[in-house]
Amino acid sequence: MSNTFGKIFKITTFGESHGVAIGVTIDGCPAGLDIDEVFIQSELDRRKPGQSKITTQRKEADTVKILSGVFEGKSTGTPIAMVIENEDQRSKDYSHIAETFRPSHADYTYDAKYGVRDYRGGGRSSARETAARVAAGAIAKLFLKKVGIEINAFVSQVGDIKAPHYTTLDLSKTEDNIVRCPDAKTAEAMIALIDEVRQDRDTIGGLVTCVIKNTPVGLGEPVFDKLHAELGKAMLSINAVKGFEYGSGFEGIRLRGSQHNDEFYNDAGKIKTKTNHSGGIQGGISNGEDIYFNVAFKPVATIMQDQQTINKAGEEATVSGKGRHDPCVVPRAVPIVEAMAALVLLDFHLRNKSSKI
Amino acid sequence: MSNTFGKIFKITTFGESHGVAIGVTIDGCPAGLDIDEVFIQSELDRRKPGQSKITTQRKEADTVKILSGVFEGKSTGTPIAMVIENEDQRSKDYSHIAETFRPSHADYTYDAKYGVRDYRGGGRSSARETAARVAAGAIAKLFLKKVGIEINAFVSQVGDIKAPHYTTLDLSKTEDNIVRCPDAKTAEAMIALIDEVRQDRDTIGGLVTCVIKNTPVGLGEPVFDKLHAELGKAMLSINAVKGFEYGSGFEGIRLRGSQHNDEFYNDAGKIKTKTNHSGGIQGGISNGEDIYFNVAFKPVATIMQDQQTINKAGEEATVSGKGRHDPCVVPRAVPIVEAMAALVLLDFHLRNKSSKI
Amino acid sequence: MSNTFGKIFKITTFGESHGVAIGVTIDGCPAGLDIDEVFIQSELDRRKPGQSKITTQRKEADTVKILSGVFEGKSTGTPIAMVIENEDQRSKDYSHIAETFRPSHADYTYDAKYGVRDYRGGGRSSARETAARVAAGAIAKLFLKKVGIEINAFVSQVGDIKAPHYTTLDLSKTEDNIVRCPDAKTAEAMIALIDEVRQDRDTIGGLVTCVIKNTPVGLGEPVFDKLHAELGKAMLSINAVKGFEYGSGFEGIRLRGSQHNDEFYNDAGKIKTKTNHSGGIQGGISNGEDIYFNVAFKPVATIMQDQQTINKAGEEATVSGKGRHDPCVVPRAVPIVEAMAALVLLDFHLRNKSSKI
Amino acid sequence: MSNTFGKIFKITTFGESHGVAIGVTIDGCPAGLDIDEVFIQSELDRRKPGQSKITTQRKEADTVKILSGVFEGKSTGTPIAMVIENEDQRSKDYSHIAETFRPSHADYTYDAKYGVRDYRGGGRSSARETAARVAAGAIAKLFLKKVGIEINAFVSQVGDIKAPHYTTLDLSKTEDNIVRCPDAKTAEAMIALIDEVRQDRDTIGGLVTCVIKNTPVGLGEPVFDKLHAELGKAMLSINAVKGFEYGSGFEGIRLRGSQHNDEFYNDAGKIKTKTNHSGGIQGGISNGEDIYFNVAFKPVATIMQDQQTINKAGEEATVSGKGRHDPCVVPRAVPIVEAMAALVLLDFHLRNKSSKI
Repeated sequence: MSNTFGKIFKITTFGESHGVAIGVTIDGCPAGLDIDEVFIQSELDRRKPGQSKITTQRKEADTVKILSGVFEGKSTGTPIAMVIENEDQRSKDYSHIAETFRPSHADYTYDAKYGVRDYRGGGRSSARETAARVAAGAIAKLFLKKVGIEINAFVSQVGDIKAPHYTTLDLSKTEDNIVRCPDAKTAEAMIALIDEVRQDRDTIGGLVTCVIKNTPVGLGEPVFDKLHAELGKAMLSINAVKGFEYGSGFEGIRLRGSQHNDEFYNDAGKIKTKTNHSGGIQGGISNGEDIYFNVAFKPVATIMQDQQTINKAGEEATVSGKGRHDPCVVPRAVPIVEAMAALVLLDFHLRNKSSKI
Repeated sequence: MSNTFGKIFKITTFGESHGVAIGVTIDGCPAGLDIDEVFIQSELDRRKPGQSKITTQRKEADTVKILSGVFEGKSTGTPIAMVIENEDQRSKDYSHIAETFRPSHADYTYDAKYGVRDYRGGGRSSARETAARVAAGAIAKLFLKKVGIEINAFVSQVGDIKAPHYTTLDLSKTEDNIVRCPDAKTAEAMIALIDEVRQDRDTIGGLVTCVIKNTPVGLGEPVFDKLHAELGKAMLSINAVKGFEYGSGFEGIRLRGSQHNDEFYNDAGKIKTKTNHSGGIQGGISNGEDIYFNVAFKPVATIMQDQQTINKAGEEATVSGKGRHDPCVVPRAVPIVEAMAALVLLDFHLRNKSSKI
Repeated sequence: MSNTFGKIFKITTFGESHGVAIGVTIDGCPAGLDIDEVFIQSELDRRKPGQSKITTQRKEADTVKILSGVFEGKSTGTPIAMVIENEDQRSKDYSHIAETFRPSHADYTYDAKYGVRDYRGGGRSSARETAARVAAGAIAKLFLKKVGIEINAFVSQVGDIKAPHYTTLDLSKTEDNIVRCPDAKTAEAMIALIDEVRQDRDTIGGLVTCVIKNTPVGLGEPVFDKLHAELGKAMLSINAVKGFEYGSGFEGIRLRGSQHNDEFYNDAGKIKTKTNHSGGIQGGISNGEDIYFNVAFKPVATIMQDQQTINKAGEEATVSGKGRHDPCVVPRAVPIVEAMAALVLLDFHLRNKSSKI
Repeated sequence: MSNTFGKIFKITTFGESHGVAIGVTIDGCPAGLDIDEVFIQSELDRRKPGQSKITTQRKEADTVKILSGVFEGKSTGTPIAMVIENEDQRSKDYSHIAETFRPSHADYTYDAKYGVRDYRGGGRSSARETAARVAAGAIAKLFLKKVGIEINAFVSQVGDIKAPHYTTLDLSKTEDNIVRCPDAKTAEAMIALIDEVRQDRDTIGGLVTCVIKNTPVGLGEPVFDKLHAELGKAMLSINAVKGFEYGSGFEGIRLRGSQHNDEFYNDAGKIKTKTNHSGGIQGGISNGEDIYFNVAFKPVATIMQDQQTINKAGEEATVSGKGRHDPCVVPRAVPIVEAMAALVLLDFHLRNKSSKI
């Protein structure tokens, strides 16, 4: 009951890390959209493992195959099913965790909830599932491009190393380095830190900031499905995420209303705000200013060190670091954050079509 | 399309701040629950305006009336509709905003989205809507009590004044003071600050921390409806919320995996973790430890000062502070946070009934 | 979980026959619709009890009150809540069924499912719930009128007395008589039969035919939510309905494809079909021809005669006919059928807005 | 938005008749169910084309492949994705309909709704989609078997040839002949008729009756999601279905309440009804008696004869009978009706888990 996201542009993902395949079905893509398969694959390539020295060395081509819903290059309004076959299934790497609960992983909770689990590589709880989201998000991006909406995420913090505020950065430079921080100097320091952590056989947390430009006024809905509430849920549903804030965020706690309020002015016929503590969203609805938010990622739970834990029988056990994993998840999380943001924005764009008669 | 929350225990709220009434319909409450109307009213009283010198002086009795779904004191499995009539409708206070957009309110975005809005007191965008959530949440709490789950929220920060970590506090003391902070000294300082802000005709932000104890292992679902993702959405849907974090939250960014991971141990037959950076949730599913999270509230947008803005015609205008409003929203937000948490927990408790055959 | 209908224009009904009130919340009505309260009330008057000698003599004014979602005569895009207070609550009439299961009523199944039930007047299982549907359906009709869609239901059969085929009738005459059959002669015979049945202290079944004209091409969706599948579900959800057929219906079993197929032709630039066995729907989607369907109602279960049954203790018992009930339900079912059809059509009209880019 | 069925045991189908593959994702299958792949395939074999002389001679192996959600033979609680590759894609057979609307097919309505369509073999509107339903329904059947619920459908009418009432038949004999009618003599006549129709290059309609035994009391929900309303929608969503009735059905119109009511009696401690005009459902909820219903199928629209129609340009055109099609759809519809019934029953079984505290 939890594998579907969206109300009109609905995606359902499926698949385990070391099963036959993972994939996604999109139900509700309007007909007539040009489906650029090269673009979809390029988005998956931004997320795939083995892309640089600071990511896991696990190799997966992550080649996407469209099974339905596209005819002569266009969406037909019927479900678009896409699958990615699993290739590099070194399942033997995981035999040691069949009976043992890895600390801060989902092994124990899955076991308790379902009584049975595909333990190979984390099964369904593996972040591999997010590849399916990126494929669906790529199609959402293709749609949003036609509407003019631009979504750009980047790595804004790793450990204690922080990038400058987004308004001072050139976001077109995000892909210029392997850590995906558009500020070259900060990127260099981040890469050095991740490399150090990797050599320590450890992992470290990070922050992804996402900026959405050119959103029309009126996206999002009052009450429960506020634009930032859906964005928040979308981001918190990504593996390893621990927090979400938009606009002034947690800093807003310290401010006074007279400082925080964004006064309106008329900018040559367009309604604008002088400041943007609101983060482009007021009352849950976009106001046309930049939408920006932060997504906090914890350090990856799999470390290359021995850890104490217990097994299914309740006995003490040791988990040793094995397999190939990311020392820091944020570089590969950037396209995932963008994909989830695209899914939220597109869904509201479509929902908005019936807001007025 | 956005006024319903929950998948099995589904609530739909309705009503405008200065309309005839606000209310809620609960669809999916299991039959046989004892409905304690005195308790429901007491929860509403914790949220209602005019309860202390640091809240708005607007007076509303907020008396709840049950229209259906309860027979001889028990839920019957049919929809429970509850209404709260609006009494103190000083609509004239709001005539000045019929044509003018208040800064950082939803006036402009509603107008753009819908073309028409009930401007009186903010209409549907008023936090008055949350009274309906508290009524529904009270019924969810009655259910959770039978399961043994305890939910306690409190004010942990106002401006720069912070309470100690929750594990050092006696949460039964939250209701001992008007700011709802269980630490008496901190509470005193918070009250003084809010009073000062009020005299400045200004407002200030704050933080609510929520702690959930005795959650069974297995609540929440993998992938999109992770327990913390639904809690996050629920909290972000409350008026004035700007951020959400659980467990280590934004602090987790700075930690290494070797510090952050929560090792398991066998505590007299029960599986426990030595630390709780996970915040009681692993892979989106509760692990039996305390669930704790923080909810950041911005300063209330309505201030008793003149502010520059524009009107519907796009002309410059001044909004003067009028009406009766809260200098700080968090004391009254505590029962709202608890109510939303209760709705999320109960929904997952019911969803969990079909996780295994 | 079963009290909501629709995906975009979503209604949730609540209330028991002899509780405080019944009502409905509409979530998803687009903003800007003129809400004609006089029309809503007039639709309820077509359904209300006591309107003629061939309906139950129970008296209910069925006065609808709008609580929210309408401002200065227009819908605002927020939920429209409407309530109808219960007036004539002769609960004592029903004390005899608190412990006894009436034949072919829902007393036994509710009791088994929920363990508790509001037995007064059938509680939630009473057809009184349909008044809430008629109120919501009236708003849907107001919307559809702007689109040009016309919905006309009428009584086409009572017992063995049948009206001629709809294409030979003037549907504007349906309200000319108390049985709601537009053919005056047939109406007379139907009224006589119902009167005879009533004097026999018995009840009888009937058929309602519904015709929808001026539907645009393209309403309905392929696969599960075919237009006729949603219409079928909507009709089968009305109390006492036992069957649904559209177009050729059950007669289609006997035909050959060469007889049944509707050939297309070009009618002055408009695509039309020569025949209409399809009932205006092909592949689940409207083709612009008349949509027509039949809804079969069983005889009302409450009869003014003694019947054998058992009580909650499993002992044999006799249920005597008491209370005031309809000898034939179809005259009052006409506005209910129309309301449900309007809800289905409007929902598809709104869903259709995102079928193409 | 229309390719998902079910609320807890939710299936989403995808795929076009002549695309790469068709398939289904099941979200919400409880963990721990033994997944018998041989049984799933055997259900598909009952539906597949080319199985006898009275079905289409199109050959498809319809081999199902499970991609996810099953580990070591058991469901894991995660989505079960299944695909069936399309093999015999004689797409050239359909080039003639790229520009022409076949009478009583969905060509015209899809074109109007979506502006683009995969015309090969009817694309998404092809009954080939139902193979995905049968695969999902097979898993639902495996679950229901554990609960003891039995579902048996059979062909009860072809043209004017009718089988005796189900209570006089031995339903275990349904698979004994190619038309799937458990009465041997009737089956013989039906086969002869279908063969005659086939030689006439024509098609004919039919009726499928479905009987569900051993349903526990309490499945189904009041108001909109009545058990028979969901069954009705499920059946009407099958290609070529024109009508649905349960229990007394359309015959109930003619009866009086005193004849129609099913009196209760105590059968050795079990509550039973003397008659079963209710068809095992009262107030939308199962009462433990046999559930039975009829599903009317029109004659297949594809006939091997020339038909007049128009093309996309609005010009007159002739469609000639080409391709390989069924002279009568009901023999292959039997497993589809059973599959959809199984999906409805299982969904209610799971929903029922939260009806009481």
